[in-house]
Formats: sequence, C-alpha cells, structure tokens
Amino acid sequence: MAVHVLRLGHRPTRDKRVTTHLFLAARAFGASGATYTGVKDPSLEETVNDVVLNWGGQFSIEFNDDWRGSISRWKRGGKVVHLTMYGLPLQRVIPDIRDDPSDILVVVGGKKVPGDIYGMVDWNVAVTSQPHSEVSALAVFLHELFEGREFEKVFEDSRLRVVPQERGKKVKEFSPKV
Amino acid sequence: MAVHVLRLGHRPTRDKRVTTHLFLAARAFGASGATYTGVKDPSLEETVNDVVLNWGGQFSIEFNDDWRGSISRWKRGGKVVHLTMYGLPLQRVIPDIRDDPSDILVVVGGKKVPGDIYGMVDWNVAVTSQPHSEVSALAVFLHELFEGREFEKVFEDSRLRVVPQERGKKVKEFSPKV
Repeated sequence: MAVHVLRLGHRPTRDKRVTTHLFLAARAFGASGATYTGVKDPSLEETVNDVVLNWGGQFSIEFNDDWRGSISRWKRGGKVVHLTMYGLPLQRVIPDIRDDPSDILVVVGGKKVPGDIYGMVDWNVAVTSQPHSEVSALAVFLHELFEGREFEKVFEDSRLRVVPQERGKKVKEFSPKV
Repeated sequence: MAVHVLRLGHRPTRDKRVTTHLFLAARAFGASGATYTGVKDPSLEETVNDVVLNWGGQFSIEFNDDWRGSISRWKRGGKVVHLTMYGLPLQRVIPDIRDDPSDILVVVGGKKVPGDIYGMVDWNVAVTSQPHSEVSALAVFLHELFEGREFEKVFEDSRLRVVPQERGKKVKEFSPKV
C-alpha cells in the first residue's frame, strides 16, 4: 500500500516551517510523496529535496493547485483519507483502512478547509478530537496505518546515516554514487 | 505516570507556530504541562491557554530559561527522556520507559542542542533516525508511551467538544461554569 499526502493551502511566509515539518514527517513515516496547493514555494521544495538527497529513499514533491482534480484522479484507483479533528476516531476506523489494499491519499488541511471536502473523501479521520497539529496528526496516522513497520524502513542511497547511540551523535557519511 | 515537556531554545519570530503545535500535541497526547527556554513569548502562552480554556483539561505552561536546573530538579524524583534522531530507537527502549513508574520529563530540542544534554538524561530516544519534526516525534513518543490510552482521555470542563461525524463538523458548546 502506497501513501501520498495532499497538503491544502500552503502559504510560503506563514506555513514554510510547518509544511516542511509535515513533508519530512510524511517521508520519515513511510509516505512516498506529497502534493501541495496554495502558493508554489521553491525553497520549501528545495529543503525537502535536500533531505531526500542526503538521507535517502524516494520522496516526490510537487505543486498542483487543483486539489479537486487530484482527489478525483486518485479515487479512480485508490482511497482518500481526510485528517480532521471533526471526523471519526482513528482507533475506530483504522482497521478498515488497513484492511483495504488500495493506495491512499491523505488530505491534510490548512486553517480553512473547503466544506465540500468532507463529502468527497472515503474517510474523515480524527487523530484525537482535540486541536493540535497536522504534523502530529499525520505522523500518528501513518504510524497506526503501518503498525510500526515504518520504523524498519530502509532509506536507500543515502549520503548520511545515523548510527544510533545511547549517548551523543554518530553519523556515517557515504560518497555519492558516480 | 505524569509527563511534562521541556522545549529548548524557543525563538518567538521563527518558532511560534512550531512551538504552538508542539505544546498542543503535548496536551492532546496526554502530557500535563510544558516548560520552555529561549525567549519568553506571551502570545504563545496565550494561544495555548486559550485552547485549554475552550477545550478543557489541565495543561500548564511556563517559561524558565534554566533548563539545566529544570532537568536536575526533575531527576530528584523522576526520569528524563531526550528526543533526538541520534538516540536509540523508540521501539527498542519504550518497554523500559513504560515499565518505569516515574514521572517523565521529555526534552525536545531546537536546532542547536547543547552537547552535554546527551549525558544528563536517562534515555536519548530516536523516533526514527530520520530528520522530521519535534511535533511528530513528541506525538508518536507519547502515543507509544501511553499505548493509545491517551485517545480515551477526557478533557474536563471544556467549553467546546467535538461530536465525531462521518461527514461534516459538529461541535457542542457548553456554558462556562459560574
């Protein structure tokens, strides 16, 4: 099952760090790419692409403001999850989502989500019904979806790799492939 | 087991939204309060306190720049976890942390963490060894620590409460207590 993230309404000035964190969390927890709407932000894309270059694996990022089109296209072969504190509790719906073999598009809103989105998706999922962050909501959703298997994911062709330590930092560097 | 969060090096201009998300995630996933260092930020505190007022429960927030003092005091009766991508994998150390009945201080760094912190804490924990976000790291750590029981947490005396829906939004409002 592949997972792609659709981030709505990115505003470069206000959202740069949160959207960066969102996409890095998407990558770290096993999503294979992200699309965003709002305003195109080359420096956001560069930051994420630099992480992919250094830390490995495949993670695509693209701007496409037509989110209705993205959802419609995705629904031809896959399923769509919308993360919202107003939806059904994660712990109640995650078994159904896990059992579905379809690829999943995870829609993550900004402050103002258009009302018709609730009717367009397959599942409106609440990662708690409390206000927190799209970053934490996405990470916990993916962690539950993959049931911790994302912790074993190998990020191939990385230039850098952490060697886990009880104390301190150890990072291995590899030469880029010729 | 109570959990308190210590956020290092908050800079109001650059970090406001990420620290706000961090504290809201701390609250939503069961921590009982947070302390931060760096620069005091009344508007950050107001945002978090407003969420507590509206959405209920207890969550304290305070500024105290003496993080070494905070850690030392905490260690008299509790244990300290430092979230860092350079630490030992969450999935390897979480059973030991869960088994320990002590209250836990979770230290969350900013960009530049002083090197001596690795030696001061009981566990350096990596929520994946990949770069992502302190917000996602904290949420997944707390979710693993509480094993999903945080989803059942009741936030008492709230003015607002979500009524989970398959489609759309439903929020109940309660009158403030006299």
